[in-house]
Amino acid sequence: MKVYEFKGFANPARVRIALHEKGLFDEVEFVHVDVLGGEHRTPEFLAKNPSGVVPVLELDDGTQISESSAITEYLDHSAGEPTLTGKNAKERAYIHMRQRKIETGLLEAISHYFHHATDGLGPQNYAHKNKEWGEYQKTVVLKTMKAMDDYLANNAFLAGNEFSIADITGMAGFAFCDFVKVETPAELTHLNAWKQKVFSRPSASVAA
Amino acid sequence: MKVYEFKGFANPARVRIALHEKGLFDEVEFVHVDVLGGEHRTPEFLAKNPSGVVPVLELDDGTQISESSAITEYLDHSAGEPTLTGKNAKERAYIHMRQRKIETGLLEAISHYFHHATDGLGPQNYAHKNKEWGEYQKTVVLKTMKAMDDYLANNAFLAGNEFSIADITGMAGFAFCDFVKVETPAELTHLNAWKQKVFSRPSASVAA
Repeated sequence: MKVYEFKGFANPARVRIALHEKGLFDEVEFVHVDVLGGEHRTPEFLAKNPSGVVPVLELDDGTQISESSAITEYLDHSAGEPTLTGKNAKERAYIHMRQRKIETGLLEAISHYFHHATDGLGPQNYAHKNKEWGEYQKTVVLKTMKAMDDYLANNAFLAGNEFSIADITGMAGFAFCDFVKVETPAELTHLNAWKQKVFSRPSASVAA
Repeated sequence: MKVYEFKGFANPARVRIALHEKGLFDEVEFVHVDVLGGEHRTPEFLAKNPSGVVPVLELDDGTQISESSAITEYLDHSAGEPTLTGKNAKERAYIHMRQRKIETGLLEAISHYFHHATDGLGPQNYAHKNKEWGEYQKTVVLKTMKAMDDYLANNAFLAGNEFSIADITGMAGFAFCDFVKVETPAELTHLNAWKQKVFSRPSASVAA
């Protein structure tokens, strides 16, 4: 299988971490998409993902899967332990819920901040900008960090006591926060301890 | 099990449709949350869902699941046919991808339009407003409708040839569009035929 990506970007990082956690990292051919040069807007790339964003997983039969959580769903069901999306109805629903809250409140919010309130990837790559909306999203990020800290006071990871896709989304979110220099408040001690723990995992080394 | 909801709202509609499609509708006790009166901001409700939105599924063991796609994940894994989220790795990933694209491009976009560009639920329920951002989201909705029409030229439903969670998200999105009077262009004939088809399903009658 192939992964079309841009190494260092947040969403490709999610897929790289998932691949490594599942023991599938060496089975993938990574294909660089020149996003800064606009390759994601070419007809060839849009045929792979009409949304025009990386990453895209291409299976050997030609099936193309975009959306990082969908790619992780595929990987998780294609290989054995550890499980990233849960083992039964209740676990699956709970982890799915936790992932969505962190995706919306942290990763999507910091991405909005980057694209709208800073120079982002430049006007050629993000034509519609709204600075006030971007600045507001930074307040969403900080509120989410506080909620994550509260949660981690009673849980080892972001969706209970086992590492999951929710933690992967969190890792990508904090890598993005670092990049745009939005710091985690020092008083969020549970969150800072979690960051230290997850960024020490071997999977973190292939993402950055 | 219980579902905390507000009948007629888009996200509760997703869960009602999923329950009906799975044959679980009569097993649920629906609990009305007075969102217009601010009940979703009370400590009691925030303990069920810190995000402060409906719906929330409460299992008999007290587990609370929010996020409509997570609730659907639970329901789909708790009962038999028909399957709403796919049967194997590839189906699950493909349906997950399609659902996310419609969730972002249609349902979330029309919700942003409603809350930001119109009076929405009033300032007490949506303090941060950005009219320009809301108006922009309407262009996202219309672009998504065109992409859906293109897709439906070659597929019976929104994630291939079987009804799935992607169609449920689409139904909720179009009910919201009707409510805020954003019309589906008549020339999108495949999309209009799909709407007629899915809104004739028995599950549609319990959602509105």
